[in-house]
Amino acid sequence: MSLKEIQDEFDKWAQKCDPPYWKPHEIMARLIEEVGELAREINHRYGPKKKKSSEETKEIADEINDIIITLICMANSHGIDLNEAMERTMQKIKERDTERFEAKN
Amino acid sequence: MSLKEIQDEFDKWAQKCDPPYWKPHEIMARLIEEVGELAREINHRYGPKKKKSSEETKEIADEINDIIITLICMANSHGIDLNEAMERTMQKIKERDTERFEAKN
Amino acid sequence: MSLKEIQDEFDKWAQKCDPPYWKPHEIMARLIEEVGELAREINHRYGPKKKKSSEETKEIADEINDIIITLICMANSHGIDLNEAMERTMQKIKERDTERFEAKN
Amino acid sequence: MSLKEIQDEFDKWAQKCDPPYWKPHEIMARLIEEVGELAREINHRYGPKKKKSSEETKEIADEINDIIITLICMANSHGIDLNEAMERTMQKIKERDTERFEAKN
Repeated sequence: MSLKEIQDEFDKWAQKCDPPYWKPHEIMARLIEEVGELAREINHRYGPKKKKSSEETKEIADEINDIIITLICMANSHGIDLNEAMERTMQKIKERDTERFEAKN
Repeated sequence: MSLKEIQDEFDKWAQKCDPPYWKPHEIMARLIEEVGELAREINHRYGPKKKKSSEETKEIADEINDIIITLICMANSHGIDLNEAMERTMQKIKERDTERFEAKN
Repeated sequence: MSLKEIQDEFDKWAQKCDPPYWKPHEIMARLIEEVGELAREINHRYGPKKKKSSEETKEIADEINDIIITLICMANSHGIDLNEAMERTMQKIKERDTERFEAKN
Repeated sequence: MSLKEIQDEFDKWAQKCDPPYWKPHEIMARLIEEVGELAREINHRYGPKKKKSSEETKEIADEINDIIITLICMANSHGIDLNEAMERTMQKIKERDTERFEAKN
């Protein structure tokens, strides 16, 4: 599934909710909450009070996923196609690579 | 491009860097910085000092994209496949939909 | 108690811990966690899923306090006197006031 | 100056603004922006791209101060007395100390 397909699939579901999306500032606050949960996981695994084995990464995967879902809400509520910006980024990465390759030759 | 393909493409580029990825806490701090930039955009557009027309969403798209890229770094540096968690989420959404449909019938 | 006195009191306690303070990136991650909890409170009270009466503010006070404590850890671990920066801010506010008063006359 | 005096001084100034305080979600977004700036400083000093000598701490002090000012706005707009929560915290710290002392004897 591409980012756009994930967005569309999520939107189909959201459109059955009332309202489909929260207000931007409300999504923003939710985003912080989710980022805070990832930060807690990072401290649990790598921080001063290590509680987790360094091998399990499921919680980190889940927290990252929750953040992406919140970003999809923000994007959808603005009619933003996340593929577009991502393709620009990927294009830049490839160009930087080509320059580096040429620089070496 | 799926999330996994974006991750792989990004990783090909990162592997040429030394080190390919920052430490988890460093990526975490960067994530906050990027989230802070999205927050500033949200206040510029919807907040007390509106500076932006409500029609332009390019900056918001770019800030969301920067956050996703940072999350991809965090995921890649942990060997996390973001498609997996996303598919679980999408599956849950569909199941909730089916239950709702059945509840109505 | 001034900010400096709070810092000193807290430091007396911290010096009995080993180590007295976490590393800067670890305190940073904790800060986000605490900020995320305030964000959750704000959404609970003012957001899409209001759960709290608008009159109780104890939770908000507690979350703000937790953030200030985390900032005190960050300041103390750097030997920063928070009174100094705050006094500069207060001075600026008063000057801006004087200018405004003069502008009116 | 105690936290309460800082709050009062700030409020005198804010009351001349219209409106004196932003809405809670707007202050929340501003808070993230300020926290993001502290995160950037932390990465500049301790992170993968160290730019700053470890001796200068003025920027960190200023960023912490900006966060505290934003928290004071949040507190003031809710009529919260920050001294109260802080005194509870300080009391807890002292009690924990006494217990520890007694445990040792």
